[in-house]
Amino acid sequence: IHAIPWDPIAAAKGDYRHFMQKEIDEQPRALMDVLRGRIDQEHGRIELTDIRLSDADLRRVRRIYAVACGTAWHAGLVAKFLIEQLARVRVEVDYASEFRYRNPILQSDDERDALLLAITQSGETVDTLAAMEEARNQGVSSVAIVNAIGSQAARLADGGPIYLHAGPEIGVASTKAFTSMLVAAYLFALRLAQARGTLTPAQIREHIQALIELPGKAAQTIEQTTPLCIKLAERYHKASNALFLGRQINYPIALEGALKLKEISYIHAEGYPAGEMKHGPIALIDEQMPVICIAPRDHIYEKMVSNIEQVRARHGQVIAIGHLGDELLAEKAHHLIGVPATLPLLQPVLNVIPLQIFAYHVAVLRGCDADQPRNLAKSVTVE
Amino acid sequence: IHAIPWDPIAAAKGDYRHFMQKEIDEQPRALMDVLRGRIDQEHGRIELTDIRLSDADLRRVRRIYAVACGTAWHAGLVAKFLIEQLARVRVEVDYASEFRYRNPILQSDDERDALLLAITQSGETVDTLAAMEEARNQGVSSVAIVNAIGSQAARLADGGPIYLHAGPEIGVASTKAFTSMLVAAYLFALRLAQARGTLTPAQIREHIQALIELPGKAAQTIEQTTPLCIKLAERYHKASNALFLGRQINYPIALEGALKLKEISYIHAEGYPAGEMKHGPIALIDEQMPVICIAPRDHIYEKMVSNIEQVRARHGQVIAIGHLGDELLAEKAHHLIGVPATLPLLQPVLNVIPLQIFAYHVAVLRGCDADQPRNLAKSVTVE
Repeated sequence: IHAIPWDPIAAAKGDYRHFMQKEIDEQPRALMDVLRGRIDQEHGRIELTDIRLSDADLRRVRRIYAVACGTAWHAGLVAKFLIEQLARVRVEVDYASEFRYRNPILQSDDERDALLLAITQSGETVDTLAAMEEARNQGVSSVAIVNAIGSQAARLADGGPIYLHAGPEIGVASTKAFTSMLVAAYLFALRLAQARGTLTPAQIREHIQALIELPGKAAQTIEQTTPLCIKLAERYHKASNALFLGRQINYPIALEGALKLKEISYIHAEGYPAGEMKHGPIALIDEQMPVICIAPRDHIYEKMVSNIEQVRARHGQVIAIGHLGDELLAEKAHHLIGVPATLPLLQPVLNVIPLQIFAYHVAVLRGCDADQPRNLAKSVTVE
Repeated sequence: IHAIPWDPIAAAKGDYRHFMQKEIDEQPRALMDVLRGRIDQEHGRIELTDIRLSDADLRRVRRIYAVACGTAWHAGLVAKFLIEQLARVRVEVDYASEFRYRNPILQSDDERDALLLAITQSGETVDTLAAMEEARNQGVSSVAIVNAIGSQAARLADGGPIYLHAGPEIGVASTKAFTSMLVAAYLFALRLAQARGTLTPAQIREHIQALIELPGKAAQTIEQTTPLCIKLAERYHKASNALFLGRQINYPIALEGALKLKEISYIHAEGYPAGEMKHGPIALIDEQMPVICIAPRDHIYEKMVSNIEQVRARHGQVIAIGHLGDELLAEKAHHLIGVPATLPLLQPVLNVIPLQIFAYHVAVLRGCDADQPRNLAKSVTVE
């Protein structure tokens, strides 16, 4: 017997034109739901009771394979930063479709120190399930970050599913599931850090505080960036190409911003690590090319500013995502979409929101069906 | 005192219109030069005397970080397959510009088992040099696959440079250096396998035999695919977008084919692992979109054929790169560029050649300067 905690009425569109728009707006609520019951602010502890691995099990892990497809793969790339920085465990991220045919070296018999982290909204993505089976065959435990209760991935995850509790996501282009995945991965990284002693309770308390403030900041982001995103969509919706640049933990957000636009507006958008621009993609840049640059004030902010200058020198149109009130960035870019600041490792959750809103409005202006893009299915259950 | 083995006359264009064309044609010669003096067919041994690591050093390696930029990064992605499959050492591939700011977990004090593999044609790529310095600061040895004799990367590589001996490469879009990098990485993987005992001398002899036959097959590939590549360039040079799909060891070749086209023809071309197509890029496909699919007869051939069928169902124009005489593939695709068969792990060297030739002719037909594309420099010596 499976409990079905989703309210069928929550799946209705209500006053929204598209589910995607509704799901973007549901993110503050979804971010609260993924945190609920899992944080103990007073003691600086993470309580991820879904996970069936003991502290001793978690301490034995020396290598994590994060496997996923599409948007969830971008969440895996973010998870690598979270886990490596917070828990100091190495993470290799792979496309599930590549991993399963790679003959991967997971662990030798004398090691028994690997863990698979599968990420899938539907829990039915065929390549991700195959990767989990490959892990099981090699004696490697799996943890699954998953939305759909009782799905295959949830059942295959012998280390336990970490449920998003984001409610049904109907739009083919993932929004609330993606940001919930990032927070679930954050919780998992903190849980690992707690078991391994790489963070003190006081440090964990700081992270918890930032997590608690996140839903409110997400609401603020939606409210404050939507008008500018609509204006920018009006200005750029006829572009046939776009580049998205980021570095480090915001590089996957550049990929995700490009994927959103590609999926629902059919604009050929591509994400790149900004440092690679001079090794090829800069040749594409001319005055027709919008270049979206993600540049919060972190340890590589100045590198991003320098990349923005390079794009402008080739007459690209720069839309920057940065911190609210960043005057330098406002001056360097043609447009600045300001988002609230949070901890650098949590910043991707807020940075991606205006990219979702921008992609949605571009699709609508181009007359595309944002919820049901051509050629795409919500979950890819065949190869 | 540095010996200068490069003949200045060899750097002249001769009868060629562009250096790029000349350098494509020089590949059979370059592939012989990278092998010269390094293989011992009789004893089934690799002699990489450039490497200053003993067998004991090589046996201690449990983790390799391959770092590079641009085309060389694609060589790193191929090297991961070579090293993991032949020597069973795990390889993590990273963009040098990302690696250097990542605070990477290279090795803990009790491990001392990591190795950095830097790949750079010029040996002066600033981000790659910074990655090598990061490794040195963490007590990790470096080996550099590098073309320019006496370059910074060659000097920083305490584990030794593996020189390509490809001669000067003038065209900004790398061709002969790339295929030479793949062979150098192959030699390094075999050298590791030899030290670690993961291959027997008899097995190494088989690989050596395939390497010996490779330059001749490269010459055959150039000769036999050029007419069709020119015809396809005439047909598709007005495209504004293109997709390149591959799986496993040919996924980096899809990336490289896309990069060539992007760099010199300014067509927005993008490479994807074919299994990811349904998670987004398939939305871009319509009858205007050439989709280049790399599908040699290997263990994932049938998956690629199925991806080709999916592209055709969306009316994409399929150009397949496959084995000469593959009738099934000829039937499934609109066009088949046939290349000679070699060992699956060496096949990328031959598969990339028609992609270089195609990109070159597209650029010429579009009136672009193939040797000096806009906005790009041959080596990126500043961030």
